[in-house]
Amino acid sequence: MAVVSIGLKPALDRMAKDVDILFDTWLKVPGDSRAKLYEAMRHAAIGGGKRLRPMLIVAACEVFNVDRDSAMRAGFAVECIHVYSLIHDDLPCMDDDDLRRGKPTVHKAFDEATAVLAGDCLLALAFEILGEKATHADPFVRAELMAELARASGPAGMGGGQMMDLEAEHRELDLPAVTRLQQLKTGALIGFCLEAACIMARIPPEHRTHLRGYARDLGLAFQIADDLLDVEGDEENTGKRVGKDAEAGKATFVSLLGVDRARQQAEMLVDQAIDHLRDFGEEADMLRAIARFAIERTH
Amino acid sequence: MAVVSIGLKPALDRMAKDVDILFDTWLKVPGDSRAKLYEAMRHAAIGGGKRLRPMLIVAACEVFNVDRDSAMRAGFAVECIHVYSLIHDDLPCMDDDDLRRGKPTVHKAFDEATAVLAGDCLLALAFEILGEKATHADPFVRAELMAELARASGPAGMGGGQMMDLEAEHRELDLPAVTRLQQLKTGALIGFCLEAACIMARIPPEHRTHLRGYARDLGLAFQIADDLLDVEGDEENTGKRVGKDAEAGKATFVSLLGVDRARQQAEMLVDQAIDHLRDFGEEADMLRAIARFAIERTH
Repeated sequence: MAVVSIGLKPALDRMAKDVDILFDTWLKVPGDSRAKLYEAMRHAAIGGGKRLRPMLIVAACEVFNVDRDSAMRAGFAVECIHVYSLIHDDLPCMDDDDLRRGKPTVHKAFDEATAVLAGDCLLALAFEILGEKATHADPFVRAELMAELARASGPAGMGGGQMMDLEAEHRELDLPAVTRLQQLKTGALIGFCLEAACIMARIPPEHRTHLRGYARDLGLAFQIADDLLDVEGDEENTGKRVGKDAEAGKATFVSLLGVDRARQQAEMLVDQAIDHLRDFGEEADMLRAIARFAIERTH
Repeated sequence: MAVVSIGLKPALDRMAKDVDILFDTWLKVPGDSRAKLYEAMRHAAIGGGKRLRPMLIVAACEVFNVDRDSAMRAGFAVECIHVYSLIHDDLPCMDDDDLRRGKPTVHKAFDEATAVLAGDCLLALAFEILGEKATHADPFVRAELMAELARASGPAGMGGGQMMDLEAEHRELDLPAVTRLQQLKTGALIGFCLEAACIMARIPPEHRTHLRGYARDLGLAFQIADDLLDVEGDEENTGKRVGKDAEAGKATFVSLLGVDRARQQAEMLVDQAIDHLRDFGEEADMLRAIARFAIERTH
């Protein structure tokens, strides 16, 4: 059953359900004093978010006929990393946000210590999921997935990007600097999604160029769309506080380019991302649809 | 060159140097705005700590003739996890400590946001290290090491134990409850050290019983010694604030058993740990020496 035949919206709806089922299964609340930790992880993880990263992995796996179970488990792992990063990003010492996906953030609904631990545990959980034999029969594939996810999340990936983002409040960043920051902060994990599909499909690194190009352009387009939403969106639609970047005096694509040029830039990046897929047929239609969806949110 | 022939003290000194060299190599400060993140990780990681966990892995690998390079890399990974846990434990929202290993804690020397990120990044880094081919030629071994470390650090291991520890301030724990808490909080990572050696030596799980018994008893003995130091030690010797448990009204082995019985219990556990090694010859002498060392600190 090809996901491509059923369109992106129903595929996203199905993904939302499947990811929630996985979180519900993995985060059964134990009958001991760890209950609060699990409740906090469930609060952050279940019933929210676009699940764009798992969707990307599943769509990229469609291209190479990787089986959906493996794709879903890799997607679930990357969503654990994404949710962990949101919990820690929202902490009072970081962005200090009270609202996320229309609900109180974890440190508001619980407390700061629990929020720190819930994030830590979701980070570890991602590797636990990937490490299980059910993710992929070949241990080489499991080892490569874990190594790649570690690089994408650590100081040379998302973690490093978050540090750059914190430091951005004290510096005047130009466009290349903002681009570099976002390539780490959001781009590394989006890059992992395509890389994971290639690893599972055993595509050798020298043949991953086009999909890496797609991931790079999509990641930036997606970030510009996020910046636009922070300027033009409202709390009700986005489920989070808006206008934060301007308030913090942070340079973003929108502050540097202005709204119109930023939107043009995002559209150009989406066209470029789709162009990277020119050698593929309709098996890559879902990846094309995701690229268009990335900026649709801002219209 | 057998470590067993040169005694524990010089082996620990050598380990301290080797671990510092690895941290120095992996945490080269980049010439961009991530510099502060790397400085913070270096501050926490380099030049301190007993390096007991890497020593345990190297000693257990001696038993099975696993090569020292593989043992050191696994030991380095577990030390990354240990240091990350200390950074997050010391945060104001957790134990709120200003002093660690005789130096200001990371959130004091830098700031809270940087401390959260430095911990997160060390956690990811542990998996990056294990995932590299240099850790072990066999991808099955790499995958098993990563999966095992993820279980030991996550909600069913150290992370869950830390939650229990936070909750312990609001509850009256009895001895079985404190034992269970510590088996997760400190025991899981010590258990990983022995498990990692077995994975690298390809010892099948059904033949790991004795080493798992050793790890379990050693972990508890080590924790009792830590509790005794918190009561009897001083800031100068321990490099950290003491008397914290009593201040927080937390049940510990010492508060439940009293100092004398707690020390007897630790000694009995060390004897038991060593007894688990009875089938091994002098190749396990370093593991025996580590067990004795675990409680020597309290005399």
